[in-house]
Amino acid sequence: MIRANENYNKLQASYLFSDIAKRVDLFQKANPDADVIRLGIGDVTRGLAPAIVEGFRRGVDEMSADATFRGYGPEQGYDFLREAIAANDFQNRGADIEADEIFVSDGAKCDSGNFQELFAHDITIAIPDPVYPVYLDTNVMAGRTGAYENGRYQGIVYMECLKENGFMPELPKEPVDLIYLCFPNNPTGATATKEELKVWVDYAKENKALILFDAAYEAFIRDESLPRSIYEIEGAKEVAVEFRSFSKTAGFTGTRCGFTVVPKACKVYTADGSQMSLHTMWNRRHTTKFNGVSYPVQKAAEAVYSDAGKVQVKEYIDYYLANAKVVRQTVTGLGFDYVGGENSPYIWIDGQGRDSWEFFDLLLNKAAVVCTPGGGFGRCGNRYIRISAFNSLENVTKAMERVKDALK
Amino acid sequence: MIRANENYNKLQASYLFSDIAKRVDLFQKANPDADVIRLGIGDVTRGLAPAIVEGFRRGVDEMSADATFRGYGPEQGYDFLREAIAANDFQNRGADIEADEIFVSDGAKCDSGNFQELFAHDITIAIPDPVYPVYLDTNVMAGRTGAYENGRYQGIVYMECLKENGFMPELPKEPVDLIYLCFPNNPTGATATKEELKVWVDYAKENKALILFDAAYEAFIRDESLPRSIYEIEGAKEVAVEFRSFSKTAGFTGTRCGFTVVPKACKVYTADGSQMSLHTMWNRRHTTKFNGVSYPVQKAAEAVYSDAGKVQVKEYIDYYLANAKVVRQTVTGLGFDYVGGENSPYIWIDGQGRDSWEFFDLLLNKAAVVCTPGGGFGRCGNRYIRISAFNSLENVTKAMERVKDALK
Repeated sequence: MIRANENYNKLQASYLFSDIAKRVDLFQKANPDADVIRLGIGDVTRGLAPAIVEGFRRGVDEMSADATFRGYGPEQGYDFLREAIAANDFQNRGADIEADEIFVSDGAKCDSGNFQELFAHDITIAIPDPVYPVYLDTNVMAGRTGAYENGRYQGIVYMECLKENGFMPELPKEPVDLIYLCFPNNPTGATATKEELKVWVDYAKENKALILFDAAYEAFIRDESLPRSIYEIEGAKEVAVEFRSFSKTAGFTGTRCGFTVVPKACKVYTADGSQMSLHTMWNRRHTTKFNGVSYPVQKAAEAVYSDAGKVQVKEYIDYYLANAKVVRQTVTGLGFDYVGGENSPYIWIDGQGRDSWEFFDLLLNKAAVVCTPGGGFGRCGNRYIRISAFNSLENVTKAMERVKDALK
Repeated sequence: MIRANENYNKLQASYLFSDIAKRVDLFQKANPDADVIRLGIGDVTRGLAPAIVEGFRRGVDEMSADATFRGYGPEQGYDFLREAIAANDFQNRGADIEADEIFVSDGAKCDSGNFQELFAHDITIAIPDPVYPVYLDTNVMAGRTGAYENGRYQGIVYMECLKENGFMPELPKEPVDLIYLCFPNNPTGATATKEELKVWVDYAKENKALILFDAAYEAFIRDESLPRSIYEIEGAKEVAVEFRSFSKTAGFTGTRCGFTVVPKACKVYTADGSQMSLHTMWNRRHTTKFNGVSYPVQKAAEAVYSDAGKVQVKEYIDYYLANAKVVRQTVTGLGFDYVGGENSPYIWIDGQGRDSWEFFDLLLNKAAVVCTPGGGFGRCGNRYIRISAFNSLENVTKAMERVKDALK
């Protein structure tokens, strides 16, 4: 008899964004004329930058002729892209990462979900609350948790991030083996300084722990004193893996490309304490279960690092950061506490006692504005909502006018 | 201490095609003037068909403007593609598959590797020998096997496919829960009739087993009496999942698109015998760990089903089938036994007592022709090599002349 992985039964309801989509559909059906403005899912809305489109087109052109056609590429990504990433995203910022430590993939969601496969079943995992649900759900599916009770899975060490601690996870009191961190944070928009990250790197070294660092939003950092990569912290190469994405950097949510950095210095251990190379393991996983990113997409991603691409991508991000400023000003004017929106596309708003789904429904029904209820990111998000700056300036401005009317 | 998934230590050597690449590199360095012809990995070589390029370009054009830009798409694939697949690949052939049973992905390798995540750890698995290594390796990684001994992993039921049984797996003598089948077969090129598949469907029904059917090469079937999909067999919807790919059908090895069919009638069971929906489980896995295929790639795949696309793709496959005929004629002339090459791009050749890596080295060193040693696909491949028809007719013809000289 074919038996199921019954860990799937522990998963709660359906995926956050599906729930939101259902509520929005219901509202839209009840109010067919309503002009719903979506500041929810965190999906970019602007067309790809011209330099990127040009790279993409060149890739497609090459695929059209036998002489320039590309079949299977290296699963890890083409050298032209790995080298551009290593030079621009790391070496230029003083982080000593080599091209062959970069694994190009079709997105940070896949990689951050799949990476847990490399670890033993009974490790102890620390996950921030609130946080992007994929870290937790993929560990639930893999059977690393107990049942779900009172908004929490048994066996997980939750690191609470609330207004009281500046939305910054604190070192766990019990020993942990695997630590998920995300800065600029999704959903809170909080950022971490070098000093704050160093505490984590030191902890990981002392405890032979590993950090999975999600930097999908690093391109939004404008404060030059803030680290964009964990590898800007000395010693991080030995204890940290980093996930990156072109989704938010360059508008690739529908184009699909990201990458994961697995330094060769990064070690994991067997039960008897011998070292194994995490780089070798991920390489094996990547070559066995993945077949590389579409060649034209890799050409498009390469163009992000061209001279024109850099200028255009910066302007692309600036546009959304200007939207974030409009949201911040509105929220400040309404007297709400918030974090984020300065080096992040997300603004995390304290609902002044409202439950997050209640706040979501209020904004949907009274302003036809879609936000993301904080409760979808963990119990500590229950009294917050996330507003995303990913939309046109016109829509964000209109949405904020409506929110002002709804809440004043 | 961060402990590794030590099942990775059970994996044998590195991945087959990496080994081949290393031997070819060594040969090429020692013989810089040699014109190596690759009939190994099974990678297409011809440019994308014009209709597909046109669809691809239209997709890129849409991504370039705010008004037509697409961000995150449905993880399961756009309806335009799912509907085209359901109608053309299934309903038109009498297989009652609905669009929402199709999950579009970036390739059959990922899906056939990931699908095992849905099952309990201690199920019994039957895998053909020889076969595409991904089925086995991904189950080793997941901890479903014991150690590797005498060319076999403990705990796996190997279904031997040899000349003696017409390269057709036989029903296992012990009860099994999960069965991998692949027709047209990779690597042997053997095909299965409806009657032969019906035996498996009936077995699965009687034993509450599940079949994972890899049909990545179905487009090479020219004999209209052969089934292209397992769903052409009555009752298969309740007991079979099917993997498909545009890689070999339409030259997408570097473009990346495939799909998996998970019928809603397909059931798995909890330990206490209750039913769970496999469709619901895969949908949850797909939406949690995957973010959809690049929109322009989906537009390219859609064009495979346009009137022009259908004609061009048929011609594309015909070209490789003509190459396969050249290989078959050469091999027949040399007096070797073989299977495949008629409804398949692969020709599986009995080495007349030679070890498969010895035969590989012979062809590489004497003819500068790269084949795939059968041993890479399992112990039963040890006395065979696989020759692939994926190259230009000119190269295949030249390679076969050299093989004739080397072996006569």
